[in-house]
Amino acid sequence: MYIKGVNLGNWLVLEKWMSPALFDKTTAEDEYYLPRQLSADVYEARIKVHRSEYISERDFACIKHMGMNAVRIPVPYFIFGDRPPFIGCVEELDKAFSWAGKYGLKILIDLHTAPLSQNGFDNGGISGVCKWSQTPDEVEFVLNVLEKLAERYGKHECLLGIEPINEPVTEPMWKSMDVQKRYPPVDAELAAGSKPNTIEFLHQFYTDAYQRIRRYMNDDKYVVFHDGFQMKAWKEFLVQSKFKNVMLDTHLYLMLAELDGCVQSVEGYCNYIRGHFARDFAQVQEYVPVICGEWCMFNSYATGVDTHGGQSMLNGLDFSKNTEKFTPDEKKEIYQAIVSEQLKAWKEGSGYFYWNYKLLLDTVNNPEWIGWDSWDLGKSVDLGWFPAD
Amino acid sequence: MYIKGVNLGNWLVLEKWMSPALFDKTTAEDEYYLPRQLSADVYEARIKVHRSEYISERDFACIKHMGMNAVRIPVPYFIFGDRPPFIGCVEELDKAFSWAGKYGLKILIDLHTAPLSQNGFDNGGISGVCKWSQTPDEVEFVLNVLEKLAERYGKHECLLGIEPINEPVTEPMWKSMDVQKRYPPVDAELAAGSKPNTIEFLHQFYTDAYQRIRRYMNDDKYVVFHDGFQMKAWKEFLVQSKFKNVMLDTHLYLMLAELDGCVQSVEGYCNYIRGHFARDFAQVQEYVPVICGEWCMFNSYATGVDTHGGQSMLNGLDFSKNTEKFTPDEKKEIYQAIVSEQLKAWKEGSGYFYWNYKLLLDTVNNPEWIGWDSWDLGKSVDLGWFPAD
Repeated sequence: MYIKGVNLGNWLVLEKWMSPALFDKTTAEDEYYLPRQLSADVYEARIKVHRSEYISERDFACIKHMGMNAVRIPVPYFIFGDRPPFIGCVEELDKAFSWAGKYGLKILIDLHTAPLSQNGFDNGGISGVCKWSQTPDEVEFVLNVLEKLAERYGKHECLLGIEPINEPVTEPMWKSMDVQKRYPPVDAELAAGSKPNTIEFLHQFYTDAYQRIRRYMNDDKYVVFHDGFQMKAWKEFLVQSKFKNVMLDTHLYLMLAELDGCVQSVEGYCNYIRGHFARDFAQVQEYVPVICGEWCMFNSYATGVDTHGGQSMLNGLDFSKNTEKFTPDEKKEIYQAIVSEQLKAWKEGSGYFYWNYKLLLDTVNNPEWIGWDSWDLGKSVDLGWFPAD
Repeated sequence: MYIKGVNLGNWLVLEKWMSPALFDKTTAEDEYYLPRQLSADVYEARIKVHRSEYISERDFACIKHMGMNAVRIPVPYFIFGDRPPFIGCVEELDKAFSWAGKYGLKILIDLHTAPLSQNGFDNGGISGVCKWSQTPDEVEFVLNVLEKLAERYGKHECLLGIEPINEPVTEPMWKSMDVQKRYPPVDAELAAGSKPNTIEFLHQFYTDAYQRIRRYMNDDKYVVFHDGFQMKAWKEFLVQSKFKNVMLDTHLYLMLAELDGCVQSVEGYCNYIRGHFARDFAQVQEYVPVICGEWCMFNSYATGVDTHGGQSMLNGLDFSKNTEKFTPDEKKEIYQAIVSEQLKAWKEGSGYFYWNYKLLLDTVNNPEWIGWDSWDLGKSVDLGWFPAD
């Protein structure tokens, strides 16, 4: 099966920019500080209503109607409700599996956060902190969560696979993203000692994770390893291992292409996609099935401002004077051309998951988000930017 | 312009069955009791997150993409925030107008509730109570709200019109629906003295409302009168009046057809639609533009159980053993046939608004809602039940 999928990001793992109202009247920039700035009652009320409304059965019908066959669901390390003050969400994941059954979709479970974080991104749960892999107890905690997930869903007909950890950052990306500058830590003491994960750690973690979850999973289910933003670093490890049905997940955003010097024009993006994304994809696919587990059409050119690698208001940049630089038809043409090239590239591998299914941006009343709505697959389909089946 | 529209029900005026999580851990069946059973903080948290997530800019893109040209937005009498413990929502309506501008949609503002209620329905704000029209202060309060709405939006390019009050129940419907049995009042004392509105009261109220809002509104905007479930009772009143640009709104649900003895089969519904809805519509359109401001494809036949006029779990009926009686393809055929007949009927008048754009039902985990998801236009389009453009 060639995977055509979309991420259900910001449902069970929050990102402030996708649903700012959840963070109202707090200074929290990430999920870690949200319950620490709200009363337990109010936190619970916000989270529960959010979870019940952001994604429901009708969205699975919508995703199927778009022509997708799978969803990737980011889940937090506190999914089982054993890490107060956070509130567990395994019941929501149960529901997702039942909806997926009705509408014929597969689910890739993506463990998106870890205690003390595997990347220090806002979406890793706690900005500017990256100490999980240095903390053996928390590594063990995560392995345990993975085991419980595998035990619960490993034989479910709708399970596509389990991804043990999302975007564990390694040296090159830690530097090029300048993570602690982009996502400043709130608590210097907590952040002290943060550093990228080593490839050696990831080899060990992936091996441990594989062994502990495989036995609960049917043979046809995948264990999906994120490449730590180094798509080509995994050949030896994967070829030498005895893994059955593993997949490599790589995230290829145009904003990362821009950081790499890609020319900001339709032609520039298309050339980069062909010359790097497609080529690398084809190369890797020769020894392991590879998917692009996160990508979108977002780019600085269509947005009309240089975002310096996808940075937004939340990173302290001032885009409050943004205006539309293109007519709706021009924008549609730009996005259609780029998406078509992206979809062609992923065909060199085993499939893709668009990031993201849904955002709650308001580009009319908050012009600083003009352009960022291309992260929203639902809207992109409705506006004709993305070719739905 | 022929109106093709959809209601944004349950956004600013709640209905428990459409988003049950909002009512969690309360026994409230309607919006009146919700803030009375929650702390102010928790009530605010639930309402604010709900309003920010249930409808956002992307929904306007979606509605446009469906081929619609208008939305009808139910608003509560406390929209301006002057009726604690309720929280106002005029900022949300402001946003809707700005989104409508971007996507080229018109808005019909529908005052959906009144203090002490105009119908005693759960969606009228307080179940089993119908005393608004007997309370002159509250009638005056409502006229004031209407004036403020007209002043704020009367010249907005996206305003289609204002509907002074939704579904003021009159004698025949009060009886055939057996309102206080269907929606039992919580507080017998508060409900005492409830009775249907008289046509004479409505004549006076509509005349007053018209005069007080017309002067704020551009000539091309409509004042829309709900017919009180008596489509043919308005000829003389409307023909004799000096109203400019008024419209009659009538709500033609198949469950009301069922209460009237319509045979529960595709042929039965289609015959009834042709023989009653279409015929009556054409007749009324001869002297006033008429719209079907609420309708949907929901019916007992496709649902697989006799709902006795659209009653559900919330009315105390036990449908917990519901199962699908038809295959997905059979269901699609049933709905397609019925909708096609409905859309043909509305063509005899000036247009329609489907009820509703969105619901958060879970028919997989809560089989008691199997069939009720046909109230959800978004889902109906995705499943091919409703013909999107």
